[in-house]
Amino acid sequence: MTDSAPAAAPPPAAHRPATAVILAAGLGTRMKSDWPKVMHPLAGRPMLRYLIDNAAQVFDRIVVVIGPGMEQVAALAAPHATVIQHDRLGTAHAALQAADLFGTGDVAVLYGDNPLITADSMRRLLACRRQDGAGLALMALRPAYPGRYGRVVTDDGTDGGLVQRIVEWADASDAERAVTLCNAGVLCAGAETFRGWLRAVRNDNAKGEYYLGDVVAMAVADGRQVRAVMAPEDELRGINSRAELALAEASVQRRLRHAAMAAGVTLVAPDTVFLAADTVLEPDVVVQPHVVFGPGVTVRRGVEIRAFSHLEGCVVEPDAVIGPYARLRPGAEIGTGAHVGNFVEIKAASLGAGAKANHLTYLGDAAIGAGTNVGAGTVTCNYDGVFKHRTTIGAGCFIGSDAILVAPVTIGDGALIAAGSVITQDVPADAMGIGRARQANKEGRAATLRAALDKKKKEQG
Amino acid sequence: MTDSAPAAAPPPAAHRPATAVILAAGLGTRMKSDWPKVMHPLAGRPMLRYLIDNAAQVFDRIVVVIGPGMEQVAALAAPHATVIQHDRLGTAHAALQAADLFGTGDVAVLYGDNPLITADSMRRLLACRRQDGAGLALMALRPAYPGRYGRVVTDDGTDGGLVQRIVEWADASDAERAVTLCNAGVLCAGAETFRGWLRAVRNDNAKGEYYLGDVVAMAVADGRQVRAVMAPEDELRGINSRAELALAEASVQRRLRHAAMAAGVTLVAPDTVFLAADTVLEPDVVVQPHVVFGPGVTVRRGVEIRAFSHLEGCVVEPDAVIGPYARLRPGAEIGTGAHVGNFVEIKAASLGAGAKANHLTYLGDAAIGAGTNVGAGTVTCNYDGVFKHRTTIGAGCFIGSDAILVAPVTIGDGALIAAGSVITQDVPADAMGIGRARQANKEGRAATLRAALDKKKKEQG
Amino acid sequence: MTDSAPAAAPPPAAHRPATAVILAAGLGTRMKSDWPKVMHPLAGRPMLRYLIDNAAQVFDRIVVVIGPGMEQVAALAAPHATVIQHDRLGTAHAALQAADLFGTGDVAVLYGDNPLITADSMRRLLACRRQDGAGLALMALRPAYPGRYGRVVTDDGTDGGLVQRIVEWADASDAERAVTLCNAGVLCAGAETFRGWLRAVRNDNAKGEYYLGDVVAMAVADGRQVRAVMAPEDELRGINSRAELALAEASVQRRLRHAAMAAGVTLVAPDTVFLAADTVLEPDVVVQPHVVFGPGVTVRRGVEIRAFSHLEGCVVEPDAVIGPYARLRPGAEIGTGAHVGNFVEIKAASLGAGAKANHLTYLGDAAIGAGTNVGAGTVTCNYDGVFKHRTTIGAGCFIGSDAILVAPVTIGDGALIAAGSVITQDVPADAMGIGRARQANKEGRAATLRAALDKKKKEQG
Repeated sequence: MTDSAPAAAPPPAAHRPATAVILAAGLGTRMKSDWPKVMHPLAGRPMLRYLIDNAAQVFDRIVVVIGPGMEQVAALAAPHATVIQHDRLGTAHAALQAADLFGTGDVAVLYGDNPLITADSMRRLLACRRQDGAGLALMALRPAYPGRYGRVVTDDGTDGGLVQRIVEWADASDAERAVTLCNAGVLCAGAETFRGWLRAVRNDNAKGEYYLGDVVAMAVADGRQVRAVMAPEDELRGINSRAELALAEASVQRRLRHAAMAAGVTLVAPDTVFLAADTVLEPDVVVQPHVVFGPGVTVRRGVEIRAFSHLEGCVVEPDAVIGPYARLRPGAEIGTGAHVGNFVEIKAASLGAGAKANHLTYLGDAAIGAGTNVGAGTVTCNYDGVFKHRTTIGAGCFIGSDAILVAPVTIGDGALIAAGSVITQDVPADAMGIGRARQANKEGRAATLRAALDKKKKEQG
Repeated sequence: MTDSAPAAAPPPAAHRPATAVILAAGLGTRMKSDWPKVMHPLAGRPMLRYLIDNAAQVFDRIVVVIGPGMEQVAALAAPHATVIQHDRLGTAHAALQAADLFGTGDVAVLYGDNPLITADSMRRLLACRRQDGAGLALMALRPAYPGRYGRVVTDDGTDGGLVQRIVEWADASDAERAVTLCNAGVLCAGAETFRGWLRAVRNDNAKGEYYLGDVVAMAVADGRQVRAVMAPEDELRGINSRAELALAEASVQRRLRHAAMAAGVTLVAPDTVFLAADTVLEPDVVVQPHVVFGPGVTVRRGVEIRAFSHLEGCVVEPDAVIGPYARLRPGAEIGTGAHVGNFVEIKAASLGAGAKANHLTYLGDAAIGAGTNVGAGTVTCNYDGVFKHRTTIGAGCFIGSDAILVAPVTIGDGALIAAGSVITQDVPADAMGIGRARQANKEGRAATLRAALDKKKKEQG
Repeated sequence: MTDSAPAAAPPPAAHRPATAVILAAGLGTRMKSDWPKVMHPLAGRPMLRYLIDNAAQVFDRIVVVIGPGMEQVAALAAPHATVIQHDRLGTAHAALQAADLFGTGDVAVLYGDNPLITADSMRRLLACRRQDGAGLALMALRPAYPGRYGRVVTDDGTDGGLVQRIVEWADASDAERAVTLCNAGVLCAGAETFRGWLRAVRNDNAKGEYYLGDVVAMAVADGRQVRAVMAPEDELRGINSRAELALAEASVQRRLRHAAMAAGVTLVAPDTVFLAADTVLEPDVVVQPHVVFGPGVTVRRGVEIRAFSHLEGCVVEPDAVIGPYARLRPGAEIGTGAHVGNFVEIKAASLGAGAKANHLTYLGDAAIGAGTNVGAGTVTCNYDGVFKHRTTIGAGCFIGSDAILVAPVTIGDGALIAAGSVITQDVPADAMGIGRARQANKEGRAATLRAALDKKKKEQG
């Protein structure tokens, strides 16, 4: 979701600095969570991360206003500054906590729980303040269902008109409620002026809170131009509940899926595929229904990802076939044309070009050579309870089914492991390693045992 | 879906009894099924179950009208009374079969294939009959698409007006079709009066059936007040085909998902998560995409359920991590902070606090102690073909990969099982149990075998 | 999706021949693919396949116009004729390449990337040309959102009026844009006339291309009747991008799901179930959420397919239970009442009536008898690196957990395989086959090993 454009080049000498203040102190009580609201993830990343990353492309300085005890949020915000709002007295009060860090240029106030605003929209907000000479710029939207949004009244009723006032839905007349231009709450003004306005906000209202929105009336009263900057509803989605979190996730996923399809990826059933913000899928990758991508995945041209696969932290080279039911975990490297089949887990392991691990297998902390065939039920025993050890398998090997490879162990090129063997020592190239008991048949024994069990069952009633 | 409110307290002395008659004799030919229609499940429970459970909170007596040979339905309805409608002559005829059980108070007629009416709506129906002095109360809705619903005509056109008549869509004039108040077919009246009306219904119509709806005209003709009680469209969804069954399931799932999110559960992709009517998810449970909950699941705070997991009849304690691809079956008890990983099945087994079973494992009829690590490919052999036996594993054990534990067997605290072992006898605490063959390497054997196979292949052409 | 009606009977003597020309030379640059556009699949089959199969029911001859180097497409089209359009100079030019194969009757021009037109619509197109005496018939639609479709102007504004002209959206007046009758581009005319028109099309336009649509104006100018044949929007969905491919897939899946439900199949969550064009599901099959069907599946009455199952090329007999997490691959034959459980893969193998393979198992190239129980972790070793071999297991056998069956091998009726055995030789009926090492317990060894590892860890810091 982070805009792909690189960070702006260093500012020229005459650069006017810009600061983003992100309000992130809210408790989010409707989330009913022990976590700070802005730490809840979208596509696997904390929602605040999106806003910070995008703001960092546009603003010279970022200040995050957090609540007391929100060390997690401060850690996420680092190296950007954080200030603590000790008492939650309203949005204007929150913004005011950052006033000493406003600097000398322009200041925009953003919301940590409104995290999908793109860098482009932030740039347009700043540009409006500067190039259009607006004393105050605010973000606005025309949502499909204006509902209880606050309304923005402009002098000519258009998006481009001068803003006369904003009005909360509860206070709006019928005529005002008929207005479909809505207020997103995001503001941008000159640092000095903004500071002054914030200090002048009063809390003589029903809840006794200091509202940031009051700044708009002050700007108008001061005779300053107030202008609206439009952004799509999807960017301005606020997150106050788990249901809204799910809607925002859906919005992020829709963007990611459409970007993937536009780049030449087939998503057979886009609604059933979940992408991470950093998923890289090359053209002619085909993703079947019901696939989940965690962070850190790169999949190259011509790979097919079959249903019910789960990938994270891995690289899949061209023309490999993954799944169904393949789980690639961090550190998995799947070679060109390799096959990873059903109920196979690969972690911190490389599978060479053309190699196959097609059934019921766990490969962890391992390197498997090109063209090697790994049989069903193979397990690398990489953990002794304290340490992890590595398994190395050469090229062109044949690992029989149910082979148990107790690491550290090395299997040479072209070696064969007999089915059902427990391998604890290295196997030289072209050798056969075998470690299993000899079979014996006990004639009639099955019939005898069955009869005994049946008798016991009968006795038990 | 059952309303969470407890059953009403015992009625006071002056209590006026109320009886619900549920029509469930329909064959449901459009379902094309060998099962009675009302037995088809929603969120894993027969649809009739919902209606009975909700009605039991409101009515003193429930009578279910079934068809001949519907023993399954009678069993489901028990201990409530059932009467058999031997000939299917229409809804009024069906209701009349229960007339001897109407008692002396009020009677409501409900439909087994219209099973999502809440107890609250039933209470309002009864209250309308009683408190508003309506001779007859009927349930009505204003659907998004009124389509071919029968229309309800009131004297002032509002929901609150007196009902003048109901009119089938086929018989409606254009003006009547423009009415958006629709008839759900559910009726409530005094027992004595209702009985009289039902007996007076005639079958002089195209299909020769006795229609319950004719009662409305009788009530009006008798000069009784007829009033409509509104309920949401979602509650009044009828189920006559598999497609409508799927729509009702979607409706039930939507309610369940929203209730979970409102309680503080993160559903990353709500549309891909399927809940049972009794699923208990505590706040800060995170459910990743593509998860299915069967009946009887409780998941405590802070647990993460990863993608492609399937849970039924189990309890998961706080902060455990489940999946991806974990299957918890009835009787699974997962301890605090325990991990159940991919391709792991747990049935009638407890996993102690902090214990791990992360890969390709089957644990059935077992108890695993705290902190124990179960390696990949471990199997408890709990079945001898006739009896099930238990496996007991202590705390702090290390079960090597591919360990086969032949029950009944007990592994003491702190014991270690060597990878690839078949364990048939108890292992004492702190001991190592091992049962596997020694490895041998046959130099050059793999090359020889490969050459032989290649030669054979060449010969076969 | 192929219409189920059988191909038309051989034409009577007076039959007027009909030819379908399918334009399939397009590069589909917006797909960003190395594959020809018409080879991209819908429900698992190349999109062109649908069009050819449906056209083959209506037309006597099919000619596919392909681009140079599209051997794959020619192979798919065979035995129908293909002609190559060497230079891509527009749709009229493409159709003209097939002119020598137009024959003497009627010719319809269809588009390979508009593949969901049913045989019924094709028949109506041909009938319009013939029975209504239209010199030219064109397919039209009234889409929910007419957007940038070309518009069809008729003399009376109705679908049934005579077409006066078609107008591209870019060239349309406001009045023309208000028309909601849209042009699908599909045309049908007499062979001789059509050929003449095509040769007369000029490329004096912005792009310098020869447009098929110009034929409409020629027909009108010639004083021929031009008529529109309506088809549903879903049939006329063009596929120019991966996003449109996904929409077409969704459309195909919707049709398949509704057909299955109408036939008496329960799809608990239809949106999560993916069907192939040839999937056969009998009444009272229940499909739980998240199931994928590949080609060639037949499932009989009363079978339950549980969540996360993946089936292709298999037959499942009545009352079997499949999944969750079952993978049935080509050649799997599951007997009446048999159970295939979680993390089980079956390929080219039959499971007898009432047999069970419930956990973590791979059965490939095998026959398993009735009533046999296959334990967890069982693997048939069917591959020696060069050849595949078969495993035969009798009826009433008990295969202990983690049994490794090295094919070719035969297990007699009623035999028992001890858990953890590697079986390389045949086991007679009623015998017990066992091949595993004896267990030894080393007292205190686990404690010693753990102490050593902990010490080493401490030393490493």
